[in-house]
Amino acid sequence: MRIGILGPVAWRIPPRKYGGWENVTYLLVEGLVKRGYDVTLFATADSVTSAKLESIVPRPLEEDSSLPPRVYETLHIVNAYEKAKNFDILHNNIGVYGTVLSKLSPIPVLTTLHGSAAESDSRIIYTRYKDHPYVSISNAERRICPELNYISTVYNGIDIASAPEPTTPEDYLLFVGRLSPDKGIHNAIKVSLATGRRLIIAGIIPKANEEYYEKEISRYVDGRNIIYIGPVDPVNRNRLMNKAYALLHLVEYEEAFGLTMAEAMATGCPVIGNNRGSVPEVVKHGETGFVVNTLNEAIEAIDKVKFIDRKKCREWVNQRFSADQMVSGYIEVYQRLLG
Amino acid sequence: MRIGILGPVAWRIPPRKYGGWENVTYLLVEGLVKRGYDVTLFATADSVTSAKLESIVPRPLEEDSSLPPRVYETLHIVNAYEKAKNFDILHNNIGVYGTVLSKLSPIPVLTTLHGSAAESDSRIIYTRYKDHPYVSISNAERRICPELNYISTVYNGIDIASAPEPTTPEDYLLFVGRLSPDKGIHNAIKVSLATGRRLIIAGIIPKANEEYYEKEISRYVDGRNIIYIGPVDPVNRNRLMNKAYALLHLVEYEEAFGLTMAEAMATGCPVIGNNRGSVPEVVKHGETGFVVNTLNEAIEAIDKVKFIDRKKCREWVNQRFSADQMVSGYIEVYQRLLG
Repeated sequence: MRIGILGPVAWRIPPRKYGGWENVTYLLVEGLVKRGYDVTLFATADSVTSAKLESIVPRPLEEDSSLPPRVYETLHIVNAYEKAKNFDILHNNIGVYGTVLSKLSPIPVLTTLHGSAAESDSRIIYTRYKDHPYVSISNAERRICPELNYISTVYNGIDIASAPEPTTPEDYLLFVGRLSPDKGIHNAIKVSLATGRRLIIAGIIPKANEEYYEKEISRYVDGRNIIYIGPVDPVNRNRLMNKAYALLHLVEYEEAFGLTMAEAMATGCPVIGNNRGSVPEVVKHGETGFVVNTLNEAIEAIDKVKFIDRKKCREWVNQRFSADQMVSGYIEVYQRLLG
Repeated sequence: MRIGILGPVAWRIPPRKYGGWENVTYLLVEGLVKRGYDVTLFATADSVTSAKLESIVPRPLEEDSSLPPRVYETLHIVNAYEKAKNFDILHNNIGVYGTVLSKLSPIPVLTTLHGSAAESDSRIIYTRYKDHPYVSISNAERRICPELNYISTVYNGIDIASAPEPTTPEDYLLFVGRLSPDKGIHNAIKVSLATGRRLIIAGIIPKANEEYYEKEISRYVDGRNIIYIGPVDPVNRNRLMNKAYALLHLVEYEEAFGLTMAEAMATGCPVIGNNRGSVPEVVKHGETGFVVNTLNEAIEAIDKVKFIDRKKCREWVNQRFSADQMVSGYIEVYQRLLG
């Protein structure tokens, strides 16, 4: 089977630091190549892959503001469609502007919704192309745009081998993710203040959220009890998770898939997450963390985290959220689409 | 011959007031239908046409800010490509995002460069698709992006029949166009002040140029000698031109085609234009107006305008810039592309 993978171009593949879609795409491509498939990856020119690399975009669009994003994203997507006749299937991982061209393709096109249907603009296009085959990355994600033709849910996978084995943790709480209001950093801070536990915050501050950070977050950051360390690369992220008492994932939106939850659990770190979006699918309540409905429940859960068996957290990820499982999931979908 | 015309969607076709590309597209479509061709026009749903109308965009994107422009422009363009197999040729009049899909089309696609290659972002795409067949709307336009595969120049045409016959003018000078710095309204004002002739300014103030208007223009607008009347519809524009002593077109950029110059001359109004862009091709120096190199030359030309035969202005337009001529020009190009 010859597979074209249309990757995102906001960051390189694999991402240096931030870049959830890029990370998932990377693991999928490496897994497919390892199993002997003929894979072509469409991604930024600085990407690193075992597949054949096709690039129009010289550098990640989020790293080089001299590259007009609509122009380069369009050239990148069209390039994949121009070469589609060389593949059996084209798997779109870049979102809505990868979907909209699907009827111009000579081969089947599959779109994984990496959360992009949450944007109201994108939903206009997805809804018009509702018969196109979609993969959701959690069952919860389907609620965002229920009318689409979902042919499977394939959970995002992570590279468990690169995560350190569970160990005795330190006492700090951890937040990992972009610092946007919907990610609930302000909730994590409240839990930290209420329980007197240190909180380490890691992640980028998106340009659009600089005001949120200044107004809502920065005054709590004292460098001792509440510490902001900026973005972290995967190795340091894993170290932080491995030693954290718990990961706080008190999101305030219908997140399609909370990858950091799986990453944390893989290192043995339990997760306390809000009962929104994918959280109840990703966290096994009472066994790998706690799914809470209120801030008070989150605060109460902190003490109970010590009874969680950190090895079970990793096992759970191994069962459900391994890259290997994800690769198998997509191969099954490809085969189904090719009849 | 079955012709698909991919029209712009910033305004409806024909435009209610402003909308140069839409106006040219309208005249082309009406002319093709009149000559018996099977034409499908892709345009906004409120467009009025003798051709078959195909619409995805409910209202002009410039009139309804609730319609996200990239989303609707993309759906509109892709719709034309999805239906391309029903035509012999697809003629793209919407610019660069209509060109970029051309290799995904089962039929030949032609792009008229209505000035869009002047945008540096667009040039990235045009240059990548340089072998695509392009029509320039003046020979001067080719200097903007010389490496493209220009297969013809087809001057924009106007509906001369709807323009009033030349008559004895009043004494005012006229500017018609959007009020952007590159259109040289400030130059027109200087000519008005230096010669003591009234100046009437007609046109929209683009959002991006509101500051320019406030800072550079508004203090001269006294409602007596320098008068700003906002945008005008074609009928009132023609009346204004017909009675104007001269049209000032002292542009400061490489304009692809100055449609207002042809419109003015059709009513008998001579044009004083800067020696930039299409001006020397559109104005016959000394016979239908004056092509000037400096502001002083423009001021000196004012007095000489009285010797211009206003009937010759109209004849010149009839020879070179009639809608009929434009339609013939495009039919020839279509036939050449279809071999």
